[in-house]
Amino acid sequence: MTEISKLGEFGLIEHLTKDIKIKNESTKYGVGDDCAVLHYPHSEVLITTDMLMEGVHFDLTYIDMQHLGYKSAMVNISDIFAMNGTPRQMVVSLALSKRFSIEDVEQFYSGLRMACDKWGVDVVGGDTTSSYTGLAISITCIGEAEKDKIVYRNGAKETDLICVSGDLGAAYMGLQLLEREKSVYYQQVNEARKKDDKRALEELAHFQPDFAGKEYLLQRQLQPEARGDILAKLRENNIRPTAMMDISDGLSSELMHICKQSNCGCRIYEKNIPIDYQTAVMAEELNMNVTTCALNGGEDYELLFTVPIGDHEKIEAMDGVKLIGHITRPELGQMLVTFDNNEFELKAQGWNPLR
Amino acid sequence: MTEISKLGEFGLIEHLTKDIKIKNESTKYGVGDDCAVLHYPHSEVLITTDMLMEGVHFDLTYIDMQHLGYKSAMVNISDIFAMNGTPRQMVVSLALSKRFSIEDVEQFYSGLRMACDKWGVDVVGGDTTSSYTGLAISITCIGEAEKDKIVYRNGAKETDLICVSGDLGAAYMGLQLLEREKSVYYQQVNEARKKDDKRALEELAHFQPDFAGKEYLLQRQLQPEARGDILAKLRENNIRPTAMMDISDGLSSELMHICKQSNCGCRIYEKNIPIDYQTAVMAEELNMNVTTCALNGGEDYELLFTVPIGDHEKIEAMDGVKLIGHITRPELGQMLVTFDNNEFELKAQGWNPLR
Repeated sequence: MTEISKLGEFGLIEHLTKDIKIKNESTKYGVGDDCAVLHYPHSEVLITTDMLMEGVHFDLTYIDMQHLGYKSAMVNISDIFAMNGTPRQMVVSLALSKRFSIEDVEQFYSGLRMACDKWGVDVVGGDTTSSYTGLAISITCIGEAEKDKIVYRNGAKETDLICVSGDLGAAYMGLQLLEREKSVYYQQVNEARKKDDKRALEELAHFQPDFAGKEYLLQRQLQPEARGDILAKLRENNIRPTAMMDISDGLSSELMHICKQSNCGCRIYEKNIPIDYQTAVMAEELNMNVTTCALNGGEDYELLFTVPIGDHEKIEAMDGVKLIGHITRPELGQMLVTFDNNEFELKAQGWNPLR
Repeated sequence: MTEISKLGEFGLIEHLTKDIKIKNESTKYGVGDDCAVLHYPHSEVLITTDMLMEGVHFDLTYIDMQHLGYKSAMVNISDIFAMNGTPRQMVVSLALSKRFSIEDVEQFYSGLRMACDKWGVDVVGGDTTSSYTGLAISITCIGEAEKDKIVYRNGAKETDLICVSGDLGAAYMGLQLLEREKSVYYQQVNEARKKDDKRALEELAHFQPDFAGKEYLLQRQLQPEARGDILAKLRENNIRPTAMMDISDGLSSELMHICKQSNCGCRIYEKNIPIDYQTAVMAEELNMNVTTCALNGGEDYELLFTVPIGDHEKIEAMDGVKLIGHITRPELGQMLVTFDNNEFELKAQGWNPLR
């Protein structure tokens, strides 16, 4: 018997799907991008799906049901944007153990619908069932796109510019912050128990985690936003990305997907990677390298895309988009140029659910 | 806090979706049928989704991974047929705990693809992730249909004839059989342990459950078939159902969905409910009422549909379809007429209409 971790998520998917032959005219593009693409006369339909398991993808001691609903919907909407599509419909399946109440499910749905309302998405169906073991969430989002406007991962060309929206690493720092406060809490509880200090234990019932000055990190972790606004700006400026995806597993890992599928190399510059002030402060507090966090942190849900070099000035003039490097010939590899002008090969150390 | 069991599955769905307003032109029909219907110029797209949790929906001591893959795909394909659509694509998400190997996942996929190949369905994507607690499966199936050929649950009219394909209750009897053999096995193991009978324990390692003469029941439980063949026959005979759904929760429950959504009553005849010989024998062995099993057993994945009374002769002449009753005015209720001409009101699940 072979352990699944041997192949990892992408290896496993490749292994399972390598000899799938497409049978239907309406199936245009199968496994291997943010969405599958279905072709109908006069419209292309995009489909993406995500499965989130309690304990693996979320921890209900950190996130409440409403934020969880919001985030679950938003990360699927983000996959539709990542193909330059417009999200339209969503089907939602929940499996719930007995500890969840109707109020919990209502909270989840209210968050989910807040995210859907933001982008005009209809909830059209789903499945609600029971589970013996915590909460499982499966969401499928359906979008629409004009045929010649869909952006795949495989369209990057030599000399194209590499761009990212927003800033990176903050969601990961938010998670570190939540984990730190949780461990501070348990440490204090354990100490009070050891000393049998009843008063301290009582006070700990009202423990307030210290998030002052780090609100942005929490927001990025608990309430990510899909960047449909960036797509609108690109359209306004007549910029059409040659390749695009959303950053869910970390910049490094996603960039390597684009390079692999576009058969090219890349060169990005550490000094250009957009990092928020709070992210930098938190990384220093935790004695972590902030660039590593931005490269491998994941859950940013920002857009990573490439544009023709001719769009250089337009991109420079755009708010909320940063030019971080360029596409090269494949034999030049996937390189990070550091502040001190050293070069390192990028490694995908992104979050691996099957590790 | 309110327990979810208070509302039940359908109550919960209704509660959560009652004030959803549809925002997109392409959303034609949302929650409340076998599939959601999306409208695109020149084609309607059907979407259905199902979530299956280990321990709740399946027990891996009864079913192997290949059959599980086959069944998971087939029940989703069945939902597309239930709207008179053609299944086209499927997205598959799996969450796996560490006890599963790559070979297990391969087995699952081989079964899944067998089912998909049977009906020309393309596997176009999905998600593979980890779980702390067993196996979770989420499948979304996408189908196509011509606008005026989609059959909803709400089109049944007074005097329409009620029909079912195949026979009912066998899948439920198959489950009873599997459970019986499992308990026989554990009983023998416990006895041998009590007596410290090492030889008996060794022999029990090669325990062969007794399924002789009951192969059909097992097949119905482990390898259900979606009834696309019945749709083809109906088309050949120029019969267009007025309402239709597939029988996953039991005839009684499904018939009540059709009556509620079509605002009508119904009258079905016990003597007409199609039951296989093996189902009847097994019910007798277990001292169960076979009609109750057929009404409430579930997992048959046969088609339940209504046709105009003018199609009476055509239906009578069709193989594999049985006429079991007719649609009435709503005030006449949903009635079962027994062998001895007594009338009982149908109740969904759990309730025994025959004492």
